[in-house]
Amino acid sequence: MNTHDLIRELREPAKTKIVLLVADGLGGLPLEPGGRTELETARTPNLDACAAVGTSGLSTPVLPGITPGSGPGHLGLFGYDPLEYRIGRGILEALGINFAVGPRDVAIRGNFCTLGPDGNITDRRAGRPTTERCIATVEKLRTITIPGVEVFVEPVKEHRFVVVFRGDGLGGAVGDTDPQAVGVPPLEAKGADPASAKTAAVANAFIAQAREVLKNDAPTNGLTLRGFATYPPISTFEDVYGLKSAAIAVYPMYRGLARLVGMDILDAGQTLADQVARLKASWNDYDFFFLHYKYTDSTGEDGNFPAKVEQIERLDAVVPEIRALKPDVLIVTGDHSTPSKLRSHSWHPVPTVIVADACRTDGLTEFSERACLRGGLGQFEAKYLMMLAMAHAGRLGKYGA
Amino acid sequence: MNTHDLIRELREPAKTKIVLLVADGLGGLPLEPGGRTELETARTPNLDACAAVGTSGLSTPVLPGITPGSGPGHLGLFGYDPLEYRIGRGILEALGINFAVGPRDVAIRGNFCTLGPDGNITDRRAGRPTTERCIATVEKLRTITIPGVEVFVEPVKEHRFVVVFRGDGLGGAVGDTDPQAVGVPPLEAKGADPASAKTAAVANAFIAQAREVLKNDAPTNGLTLRGFATYPPISTFEDVYGLKSAAIAVYPMYRGLARLVGMDILDAGQTLADQVARLKASWNDYDFFFLHYKYTDSTGEDGNFPAKVEQIERLDAVVPEIRALKPDVLIVTGDHSTPSKLRSHSWHPVPTVIVADACRTDGLTEFSERACLRGGLGQFEAKYLMMLAMAHAGRLGKYGA
Repeated sequence: MNTHDLIRELREPAKTKIVLLVADGLGGLPLEPGGRTELETARTPNLDACAAVGTSGLSTPVLPGITPGSGPGHLGLFGYDPLEYRIGRGILEALGINFAVGPRDVAIRGNFCTLGPDGNITDRRAGRPTTERCIATVEKLRTITIPGVEVFVEPVKEHRFVVVFRGDGLGGAVGDTDPQAVGVPPLEAKGADPASAKTAAVANAFIAQAREVLKNDAPTNGLTLRGFATYPPISTFEDVYGLKSAAIAVYPMYRGLARLVGMDILDAGQTLADQVARLKASWNDYDFFFLHYKYTDSTGEDGNFPAKVEQIERLDAVVPEIRALKPDVLIVTGDHSTPSKLRSHSWHPVPTVIVADACRTDGLTEFSERACLRGGLGQFEAKYLMMLAMAHAGRLGKYGA
Repeated sequence: MNTHDLIRELREPAKTKIVLLVADGLGGLPLEPGGRTELETARTPNLDACAAVGTSGLSTPVLPGITPGSGPGHLGLFGYDPLEYRIGRGILEALGINFAVGPRDVAIRGNFCTLGPDGNITDRRAGRPTTERCIATVEKLRTITIPGVEVFVEPVKEHRFVVVFRGDGLGGAVGDTDPQAVGVPPLEAKGADPASAKTAAVANAFIAQAREVLKNDAPTNGLTLRGFATYPPISTFEDVYGLKSAAIAVYPMYRGLARLVGMDILDAGQTLADQVARLKASWNDYDFFFLHYKYTDSTGEDGNFPAKVEQIERLDAVVPEIRALKPDVLIVTGDHSTPSKLRSHSWHPVPTVIVADACRTDGLTEFSERACLRGGLGQFEAKYLMMLAMAHAGRLGKYGA
């Protein structure tokens, strides 16, 4: 049985509030065997207090051994099976620059490239132009029109941009036009089915016009298109859970992922303090708040162990302000691990704590990878977290008599 | 692969005996964070002894966060995926009054209501008649005959009764006739497909005759029908496991659930002592015994923490008598948690212990929610318990060479 249908069937109206605090890349690794992880090194009296009154465990983002990107990591936390809901590259890129993709869109990652007089690619990244030049060149591409389709072109940075075709019946199964080599021309776009052939025809018309528009613009006189993706059919958070929900995230990618499931996107400011202030200001307007904290991930990606420790301590410091709002359910977790030892996302399960009145406490006195191993939630798949959140919030009725 | 097919393929003949002791609603919650649950408070030397020689763990009845009713809770313990096998309301109501529903039946919950002279409902519960009046009114309805269908009417209590139509090709997708309002007439029964339209026609004929039969019986002069349900296609316990099985349960609902999977229903008497005596008396006649103990649930539902503690201690006291029979496998578990703090069923995982010669002991010395967290079974879905029972009983052969 589809768990979303089950939730729709069982959910009950309530006035309870849920806060999902996601510390991106929260889980870590010790630098030496037997050593402490970043979270175990950090001084986190407030998260430890959550563990003492709550129920903890370790969340597996996708499956054992599978390292998720930000998309699957967050979809899992939102209760959308990341193996079922796949967000294509083009859509993620569009979400990442805050472009409001919709159900009639095909989104595509574009690269500027340099073409020689013979039409062959001489540089696949057009000599890595400045972002200013990227913006100016995108501006020129915006003059392109294609009958029956709306065309959007948005800069990302350097040689990268996003193209969105909006129209009816556009498929996403279109091959990349980047040949992944120099000395050859870009490939033609080809669709694998009739709807995708329609998209390919639009893409080829776009490319032909772009060559004309950019013909005197070497080194940014050509382009390739990759990662064609349609907007995935996905139920909204409100439809599945009956929750009026809001995202408070500083970075566009996470706002985009929240928008994808229909959350309202609130102005998050620039700092964690801004985010908490927004949470307070909007407290009465929503049932569910998704707060995203980026820096536990980015310091991990940098391989900077002490910096990640410091970011965890900063996050810990705002926990009392959040708890002072008396959420009926507070969850602190991450979308995946980002051990600074690996300088990348990883598959390791993610420390998670639920604080609610109906928690079965588990004797923990600290919030850490090692303590969570003995927590009452055990090791669980992230896709079940929202069911636990709904249950602890008194929002799920009994299944069967 | 269907696990029932797997079990049929792997099972081997044996003379071993399995006892499944279900303490209804066994799992609990501490009243305060960090406190003890009912089971942790109870003095349970005999269950603790089971944990010391057995393997323990926590059973998830359905899925994380999902609170089961008694039907799904028991089906899971019996090894029937509660998300796959759904027992409709009418069938459960019939099981609950010990009516032997079968595969050609549609079972329906009935309510007596009061109809005004205009045919509109003036009281949806007919002024809550006495159960004696319910029985007498049901007696009148038993005069109704419908060609091609057997009709059974059984009293439940006050305004509630059960109707069963027995015949070929009767569907269960029929809407309720209760309009959930007064000042309007009962709805017509309508079927969502041809087989259910046939049931709806039978129901409407029944309702028309009932109005005639009851016309002078205000306030019990009308009726509404709800929860139409067919008998679910379900393999018997013997067919799946090759076990000759018996249920020793005092309450009709649990006898009904056992009958649904084809167990023999033994006379359980009225007390736990009666149940254990029955177990002893029938010991040589069966491979598998399901013993159901109700009061751990009902005291939890009452919100009576000390009473639940006491019921757990009473159950503990009979464990030596059961172990003296030397079952090859003894399992003590619950169908769900019923924390007295919540006064209701809950989603929290359920303490479970298996005692058998082949147990891998796990160092536990007590049987409790917190100890089970460190048990050898880990956290597992209830639907796998019977496979563990069969394995520990030496009744499952090797899969593959």
